[in-house]
Amino acid sequence: MEKDRYQLGIETLGKLTGDESDKVVKNIESFSPEFGKMMIEFGFGEVYGRTHFSLKEQEIITLTSLITQGAGERQLMFHFKAAMNVGLSKEDIVEIIMHCAAYAGFPKASVAIEVLQQVMEQE
Amino acid sequence: MEKDRYQLGIETLGKLTGDESDKVVKNIESFSPEFGKMMIEFGFGEVYGRTHFSLKEQEIITLTSLITQGAGERQLMFHFKAAMNVGLSKEDIVEIIMHCAAYAGFPKASVAIEVLQQVMEQE
Amino acid sequence: MEKDRYQLGIETLGKLTGDESDKVVKNIESFSPEFGKMMIEFGFGEVYGRTHFSLKEQEIITLTSLITQGAGERQLMFHFKAAMNVGLSKEDIVEIIMHCAAYAGFPKASVAIEVLQQVMEQE
Amino acid sequence: MEKDRYQLGIETLGKLTGDESDKVVKNIESFSPEFGKMMIEFGFGEVYGRTHFSLKEQEIITLTSLITQGAGERQLMFHFKAAMNVGLSKEDIVEIIMHCAAYAGFPKASVAIEVLQQVMEQE
Amino acid sequence: MEKDRYQLGIETLGKLTGDESDKVVKNIESFSPEFGKMMIEFGFGEVYGRTHFSLKEQEIITLTSLITQGAGERQLMFHFKAAMNVGLSKEDIVEIIMHCAAYAGFPKASVAIEVLQQVMEQE
Amino acid sequence: MEKDRYQLGIETLGKLTGDESDKVVKNIESFSPEFGKMMIEFGFGEVYGRTHFSLKEQEIITLTSLITQGAGERQLMFHFKAAMNVGLSKEDIVEIIMHCAAYAGFPKASVAIEVLQQVMEQE
Repeated sequence: MEKDRYQLGIETLGKLTGDESDKVVKNIESFSPEFGKMMIEFGFGEVYGRTHFSLKEQEIITLTSLITQGAGERQLMFHFKAAMNVGLSKEDIVEIIMHCAAYAGFPKASVAIEVLQQVMEQE
Repeated sequence: MEKDRYQLGIETLGKLTGDESDKVVKNIESFSPEFGKMMIEFGFGEVYGRTHFSLKEQEIITLTSLITQGAGERQLMFHFKAAMNVGLSKEDIVEIIMHCAAYAGFPKASVAIEVLQQVMEQE
Repeated sequence: MEKDRYQLGIETLGKLTGDESDKVVKNIESFSPEFGKMMIEFGFGEVYGRTHFSLKEQEIITLTSLITQGAGERQLMFHFKAAMNVGLSKEDIVEIIMHCAAYAGFPKASVAIEVLQQVMEQE
Repeated sequence: MEKDRYQLGIETLGKLTGDESDKVVKNIESFSPEFGKMMIEFGFGEVYGRTHFSLKEQEIITLTSLITQGAGERQLMFHFKAAMNVGLSKEDIVEIIMHCAAYAGFPKASVAIEVLQQVMEQE
Repeated sequence: MEKDRYQLGIETLGKLTGDESDKVVKNIESFSPEFGKMMIEFGFGEVYGRTHFSLKEQEIITLTSLITQGAGERQLMFHFKAAMNVGLSKEDIVEIIMHCAAYAGFPKASVAIEVLQQVMEQE
Repeated sequence: MEKDRYQLGIETLGKLTGDESDKVVKNIESFSPEFGKMMIEFGFGEVYGRTHFSLKEQEIITLTSLITQGAGERQLMFHFKAAMNVGLSKEDIVEIIMHCAAYAGFPKASVAIEVLQQVMEQE
């Protein structure tokens, strides 16, 4: 049922974003409720809500995909924080970035390192 | 020392490719010894030879990067086999692909599923 | 309800693939039922099943996205045929490809033209 | 003749950018007259000046290509405004973005939604 | 005048493809005369016909762009042959590929090496 | 030996960045010494330190790869300055960008032109 996918998405978002959870959900839904609903139901409910991999393992996949596709600062920041909320350390993230340097090239890895540095300085 | 990075690369390739190890190394080095040397020393020695993550975790990163960048059949095949050689199951790989569907789009996930099917049928 | 998204996905796939509909669905679900279910429910049900744009307009979006991301032969073939099943002409598709030449570069446009030619010759 | 392609490009730019037309042309040509000339003659004259599709349909193609290739804020902003100048509504653009979520992944769709929100707030 | 851009494109294609020139042009124009005309006039006339860089230097740019965007076998083959027709050696091309390994990742470089090997074996 | 690759990387970075050399190296190494070491040893030592192509020719390859992959402002800025430090003129860079317009699409070329303009205004 739609309700469950949405509910599951909200719960997963809660684990990924911690204290900022309510703000993040409100933000996603504010501008386009339809897009927000789809992202919560499918992205965070149906996909992130799967239980085969832990949230920590899922963040390894997410970070790798973001770095490889050259995602921008906001996307990287959101998921660097989420990754640390579910148990990845700074060292883990640097290792992911180093692996991506070989697989997706140094320019994308360099951008990721710079954004990670910004995130660490904010903490 | 160069020798160690090369040696480490050969050993890592051995773990990833199992029985086909010698053939793979010979193949990499046959056409362009310089490119082959760089790939073994850097790609498989310096990067894959790191020990922070297990080879299994590193293959999760590699597969995600390959799927996200729309890598072709040969690249996907090589690493689907390598991933299974170091401990990922068919189910693990399908989960990675499903996560990538949300993060890199369904067309790239569909290609990955088709190539995985081919690999499974060859086994 | 899950059932409706799935049912809607099957119906949309039917319109896109015409006579080959049953074969396509069986093919999608054969190797990984979970991935197949997600693709039918979300990709073809939740997304393609939206009614704001016609299927013809949605295929314009799909083809543009596929050409821009450098999708391979099988993906392009499937959607060139689907596009023609829902009302796009050869001329329409060539125009999309020409627009993409300027926005995504000539190499990707050339690949699309070659695959379109193959599709037309099969008809 | 070169003259006509240039003239056609200027006219098309005029329809896409409305009141800001003169400023945009001046901006394109100021730094590198040669690049500016090529973009106006080929991009806006030869390609956008085609009449098979309406400007509204052409903007659907442009927006899809930009979102799929992960274009940055400035590119997205320019064409969100242009799209609205030639008749696409906010709802139309959100639908394009939702379709792209499935075809190019949620990170690129999320960026597009955020930039669209900024554009709507400026109006 | 249109005629000159077309004529210049044909001449440039002639230098890039040597003996196969007529066949290539016929092939480009056979399926979609409009797309073919655009590719010859703009791609090979207006862009490749520029004289600031030599054809050899222009092929360095083309090969780098193709490898970086993960272009397929046919595109790479065409331009590996063209590159050798205008003076790049196998060694030059391998060096371009090695540079791209660092900038665009090893998977794309590996594909390029494999296709180059096929081209060399055909000669 | 590791030492030599590092030393070679520092020297190459020195040629690319001129007066800012020390600052750049310190910056690369400050946040993650391991990533910084890898980038200097492999990226600037092993790859950029090759002597087959001149640094000027290598920058043509780097710029093309960055533009084609849609690299962001910081990456483009760094290498536009480096390119000029090793002998490429503004005209050379504009020609590279124009060639990339045809091969990677106008949106990426437009971004590059805008960033180049910013770099020129800073000088």
